[in-house]
Amino acid sequence: MSGARYTPIRVEAGQRIVVLDQTRLPHDEVYVSISTVDALCEAIGCLRVRGAPLLGLAGMAGIAIAAERDDASDKSLQAAGARIAGTRSTAVDLGAGVQRAMEAVVGSALTGAERRRRLWTLAAAAVDEQAAIDERIAEAGAPLLERAGAVLTHCNTGALATGGRGTALAVIAAAHRCGWIERCYATETRPLLQGARLTTWELAQLGIPHALLSDSAAAGLLASGKVSAVVVGADRIAANGDVANKVGTLGLALAAKEFGVPFYVAAPRSTFDLACMDGSRIPIEFRPVDEVGGFGEQRWAPGAMDAYNPAFDVTPARFITALLTDRGVLRPPFGPAIDTAFGPPAGR
Amino acid sequence: MSGARYTPIRVEAGQRIVVLDQTRLPHDEVYVSISTVDALCEAIGCLRVRGAPLLGLAGMAGIAIAAERDDASDKSLQAAGARIAGTRSTAVDLGAGVQRAMEAVVGSALTGAERRRRLWTLAAAAVDEQAAIDERIAEAGAPLLERAGAVLTHCNTGALATGGRGTALAVIAAAHRCGWIERCYATETRPLLQGARLTTWELAQLGIPHALLSDSAAAGLLASGKVSAVVVGADRIAANGDVANKVGTLGLALAAKEFGVPFYVAAPRSTFDLACMDGSRIPIEFRPVDEVGGFGEQRWAPGAMDAYNPAFDVTPARFITALLTDRGVLRPPFGPAIDTAFGPPAGR
Repeated sequence: MSGARYTPIRVEAGQRIVVLDQTRLPHDEVYVSISTVDALCEAIGCLRVRGAPLLGLAGMAGIAIAAERDDASDKSLQAAGARIAGTRSTAVDLGAGVQRAMEAVVGSALTGAERRRRLWTLAAAAVDEQAAIDERIAEAGAPLLERAGAVLTHCNTGALATGGRGTALAVIAAAHRCGWIERCYATETRPLLQGARLTTWELAQLGIPHALLSDSAAAGLLASGKVSAVVVGADRIAANGDVANKVGTLGLALAAKEFGVPFYVAAPRSTFDLACMDGSRIPIEFRPVDEVGGFGEQRWAPGAMDAYNPAFDVTPARFITALLTDRGVLRPPFGPAIDTAFGPPAGR
Repeated sequence: MSGARYTPIRVEAGQRIVVLDQTRLPHDEVYVSISTVDALCEAIGCLRVRGAPLLGLAGMAGIAIAAERDDASDKSLQAAGARIAGTRSTAVDLGAGVQRAMEAVVGSALTGAERRRRLWTLAAAAVDEQAAIDERIAEAGAPLLERAGAVLTHCNTGALATGGRGTALAVIAAAHRCGWIERCYATETRPLLQGARLTTWELAQLGIPHALLSDSAAAGLLASGKVSAVVVGADRIAANGDVANKVGTLGLALAAKEFGVPFYVAAPRSTFDLACMDGSRIPIEFRPVDEVGGFGEQRWAPGAMDAYNPAFDVTPARFITALLTDRGVLRPPFGPAIDTAFGPPAGR
């Protein structure tokens, strides 16, 4: 997974973070410098920075940025943390990243300067840590793709999604390095087209042969027998193994089940929300109507129009073959497997 | 279903046909005059004229147009028929329309002038006949949507698709006139966005409250319990009830089955291909790669890229609750029901 010549997030301690603006890919590789909480919230809200684990890194760095701009008091950091965590409601990593940063300093006797130093150190270390976590996921998951030939993935789960190596795409890349992947099918992932814009771009960078398809073509592709595994990421995984992920994941899982194709979900520990008993408790973010009626400046639907635009859906655990994590491959029944891997749910 | 102020196809006997250019909707209502086989093939290939039954009307009129331009001999008509029928390989209506026109004149002792007159008369009558057929489908199907509340449809199946009243959309419109439909969800239908461009436009014309969604959001919508029926059209139905329809239909059917939502397919007799025993025999048209990497002039995927772009998929009969036809509602087992309604398959 070496040699990526792009950097989804870079922490410049004491100053700012620099992120690759994912709304400009694949045509332009533009980096954006972020040194205020306002700018960070804008970047997260507009999906310049996206992907569950990368949002966690951005959330952590956001507290360092907040501390740099004022007295770094408990009260000001808590206000900043609430704002940052509130920009996207479904991705558990964002809130967890914010929380982790807060816990390192809030309630402590540290001075403002000490708090700032500690927060920046933590944010920088978290980026390296993410790469290590992603490598463990790839190492655990790749053997499941032995001689897979063709696989299908959804949305974007590469380095652009985690700031490290990626989740599902890192598993596929690791299997490709073993010579097991001939082709990766990538869904375009409407409405924001992360698959068409980002995954194809990353697959090209990784040298993996690939083909793009409309989301709606996936069921027929799985029925055709051309694909031997589906590998996706996750935005939040409940204690029973239900998975919230990019809208469209549920449909892929149903088709995979129907046509006997293994369905794998790759995610780090931070994506598991053990306090959330099942998928019905995961809040689903609804996004603006106009995302569906066009793309960017182009409008193809009539102007005044209602739309149904959830960013995520929930795939029940029964459709999932295995969870590929940084603590190994988890198999059904997922409740006990998750308990064993990550400890019992909070509050028990 | 009265009061449509637009005319998908108009036959001007002895001269030409005039079609509403569906690639320009919803923003522009532009009519295109077609008086050569070349122009017709271009219009069909570019989807200016689309929708299975409307293609049948266009195919019939195409033979009249061909006869008008030359000696109207058997040989010249057969050559024109082969060209027209070959422009889209999956839709059975197109070939059937061509065939029907040919049978009216080829091998007969009619003069060229008589052939031309007969072909134009036939083409004009077919447009009226289509409206009557569609009304019978709507009448048969609407009672299944009694108190349905919200329904989901895919692609475009209105007057724009048939040149008459429509198939699935005519059923929904008839149920709406009975006060049973509060909202019609319309999938956008990538890659050519017939749902976003055409169905929303027709729903607005019909005064039916509606919401647009990404194709990939449909499984979650069906899981939510918000929708009480799915109604779609068909491009070809095999003798056993397997249905080839716009890509994405299979995924909707799988989700409908999983979440207990009735799945209806509305189609006229002409869409049934009784010589085709099951869905595995239906040829699936693959369309150009660049349809998937963008829309119109806009490109969002990297330039050099492979894509998997089937225009249709096949939904096995076991996922279909009922077929809504101009000869009544057919229920499983579909083989015998289709036999009874339409006579035994050819060649038996």
